[in-house]
Amino acid sequence: MVLKEMERSKLEAFYSDALKAYENCKSQGLKLDMSRGKPGKAQLDLSMELLNMHIDPEQTKVDGVEARNYGELMGLPAARRLFAELLGVKFEQVFAGGSASLTLMYDLIAKAYTNGLLHSEKPWSKLDKVKFLCPAPGYDRHFTISSSFGMELIMIPMTEEGPDMDMVEKYAADPDVKGIWCVPKYSNPDGITYSDETIKRLASLKHAAPDFVLVWDNAYCVHEFEGEFVPFKNILEECEKAGNPDMVFEFASTSKITFPGAGIACFACSEANMAYMKKLLNAQVISFDKINHLRHVLFFKNAQGVLDHMKKHAEIMKPKFDMVLEYLDKEIAPLGIAHWHRPKGGYFVSLFVEKGCAKRVHALCKEAGVVMTDAGATYPYKNDPDDSNLRIAPSFPPLDELEKAMQVLCCCIKLAAAEKLLGK
Amino acid sequence: MVLKEMERSKLEAFYSDALKAYENCKSQGLKLDMSRGKPGKAQLDLSMELLNMHIDPEQTKVDGVEARNYGELMGLPAARRLFAELLGVKFEQVFAGGSASLTLMYDLIAKAYTNGLLHSEKPWSKLDKVKFLCPAPGYDRHFTISSSFGMELIMIPMTEEGPDMDMVEKYAADPDVKGIWCVPKYSNPDGITYSDETIKRLASLKHAAPDFVLVWDNAYCVHEFEGEFVPFKNILEECEKAGNPDMVFEFASTSKITFPGAGIACFACSEANMAYMKKLLNAQVISFDKINHLRHVLFFKNAQGVLDHMKKHAEIMKPKFDMVLEYLDKEIAPLGIAHWHRPKGGYFVSLFVEKGCAKRVHALCKEAGVVMTDAGATYPYKNDPDDSNLRIAPSFPPLDELEKAMQVLCCCIKLAAAEKLLGK
Repeated sequence: MVLKEMERSKLEAFYSDALKAYENCKSQGLKLDMSRGKPGKAQLDLSMELLNMHIDPEQTKVDGVEARNYGELMGLPAARRLFAELLGVKFEQVFAGGSASLTLMYDLIAKAYTNGLLHSEKPWSKLDKVKFLCPAPGYDRHFTISSSFGMELIMIPMTEEGPDMDMVEKYAADPDVKGIWCVPKYSNPDGITYSDETIKRLASLKHAAPDFVLVWDNAYCVHEFEGEFVPFKNILEECEKAGNPDMVFEFASTSKITFPGAGIACFACSEANMAYMKKLLNAQVISFDKINHLRHVLFFKNAQGVLDHMKKHAEIMKPKFDMVLEYLDKEIAPLGIAHWHRPKGGYFVSLFVEKGCAKRVHALCKEAGVVMTDAGATYPYKNDPDDSNLRIAPSFPPLDELEKAMQVLCCCIKLAAAEKLLGK
Repeated sequence: MVLKEMERSKLEAFYSDALKAYENCKSQGLKLDMSRGKPGKAQLDLSMELLNMHIDPEQTKVDGVEARNYGELMGLPAARRLFAELLGVKFEQVFAGGSASLTLMYDLIAKAYTNGLLHSEKPWSKLDKVKFLCPAPGYDRHFTISSSFGMELIMIPMTEEGPDMDMVEKYAADPDVKGIWCVPKYSNPDGITYSDETIKRLASLKHAAPDFVLVWDNAYCVHEFEGEFVPFKNILEECEKAGNPDMVFEFASTSKITFPGAGIACFACSEANMAYMKKLLNAQVISFDKINHLRHVLFFKNAQGVLDHMKKHAEIMKPKFDMVLEYLDKEIAPLGIAHWHRPKGGYFVSLFVEKGCAKRVHALCKEAGVVMTDAGATYPYKNDPDDSNLRIAPSFPPLDELEKAMQVLCCCIKLAAAEKLLGK
């Protein structure tokens, strides 16, 4: 029965039951973590060969490049080929970097501030104001990068097809608006894949700032956990066709394919952007870790090798997402006190509890030993105007712990909703 | 016989012989590289165990930190301990980063520009002018970092004891002067180790800019190729004793210990600086490659392991430096047309040819198939006021190639000197 339609006495009884159940949860002394999109141990174990492969000295030189020595700013060519194949972009458009795409994104913004981007009239540090579009709910670390440079963060609501494009187009007409953060496939946290129409409108965006940048964080480009790999539009090509070839930087990494924080990362951009970035990067680095590039190339061989590997991740991930949804469907759906997305890839289930209840649910969970991502973290300035969104990250805990965590979470959702309705 | 004292006819004959010898060099169609401080293949082979070690899943968790997953911004504690022991600093003062100390230095300067350092009144990007002291001859990539941010580079001559401290002290009184680049042990390229007196004066430097930064690039901290390891003053402690605890950032890496560009790098600084930097770094990175940290820790075990390993490098490096010096001593010294340093560690021999001849020697070498670091590269703005310094990097070519390269170099030094004296 929908909670809002319950009579007061029934609701009081519901509350009382929920409170008892919650006290019972607390008494278990749990210590569970559903806070970050961290692969679980079983997923890490999938890549142990990468850790222990044998590499002969003869194998360290690929395409004439010695992986063990300095040189080749853009990375081991074989690693660039692998990413080019995965993203469907050209080899020349790919820069293979260190172990984190987040760092490459940060560095892009940092260089916009210190030197400007290819079409900048001046470095962003010389501007009075820089605004950045933040589709929300979104990835907290994107917003943290923006904040760390003192940008003004503009919230763009997410729709089922991606960011609200009417708003994006409206804001892009402001010359102070310098870019937008996008996680286009299995978005963090909603798990939404941008529609073709959204992609088309983004690629052909009219932007007043000549150096507007579309930060295309394709973090979950091959991260289906249900069904086959879903091909995805090549945003570089789309932007080029639309007359915006230099507007986009695409990012990807193997952090959630091999080892988080120890995988390999890349960015892809137009050749004009690449020529410009190479000059700036040349001051920062001689070459990133080409041995890690080599290891990944030997481990995967090609894009198909990556897709095959992702099937193994899917086998581990699918039951976890199924469990999250089963609990929500069974425990919460009938009460009408929350709604959520049903992603087929990525790392999260985006949950919307009753308005004004997210912080309360988070606090209740914490008290019962279940750590969730902070309520509000998925919004610019950590401020969810509805105080409604919570990000469930089911990947890290093993299935039995996840089940316990979901029991606690459902219990807390109920309790918070009842508290709200009863004005407690 | 000293060339300058030769009669004209003898000099003409000398020139003619030198030219013939040079033409002979050219006819050999050589292709040799003495341009960069790259370890040679035999040195890379010393660390193959690092590439091929077996790591059990049980070994990936050290001090409770899973090296295969996200987390631990400051790096694997065991890697931080290793660097702390090597540099003689405290564990709390060490941040273990990615694969290149150069990138850490760049990032420090970048953050000074975008956010300011701990004691900055404002970010450097908001200042009209930033000046930086550049002891020269010095490391070209330091100067490139400064240039990429648009700093004004101020040349400080090197003495046998390090940078000319009278000049450093004079310039530090200018509030626009924000720091100094230092390679304190086996400096690049002179191979000079700063004297205790120089270190003391640097540590107690009176600086008008509150955020003056002593960039202490201890790139060759354990890189003796002759004799035993020479202990070196802990600059963090020296600065602290002198009342300048937050002035210094020290950098080191294993690039020239294990694999260049694929080693592990660190910076060390006061705990106040670290607290400040951690906040900024938290926006840039979740954690650097802790698996590479782990591999290095397992490979070396402790600082003594590193020193033992460096002995093997020394066995390969010493004969190369001996050969460089033998050729210079035998072929050039009697002619009085150049002078050079005799380092006991590091990667270079710093050669000073006749004034106005360095570019010519470099061009002659290039034409004969021997690539040297660009003449002038060791000076700010790539401008050696005397056009005299050349950096010999003997590490990369095998001994037989190095010998040929030295024959060519000596030949070119002679030819250029004779040309100059004859006004050709």
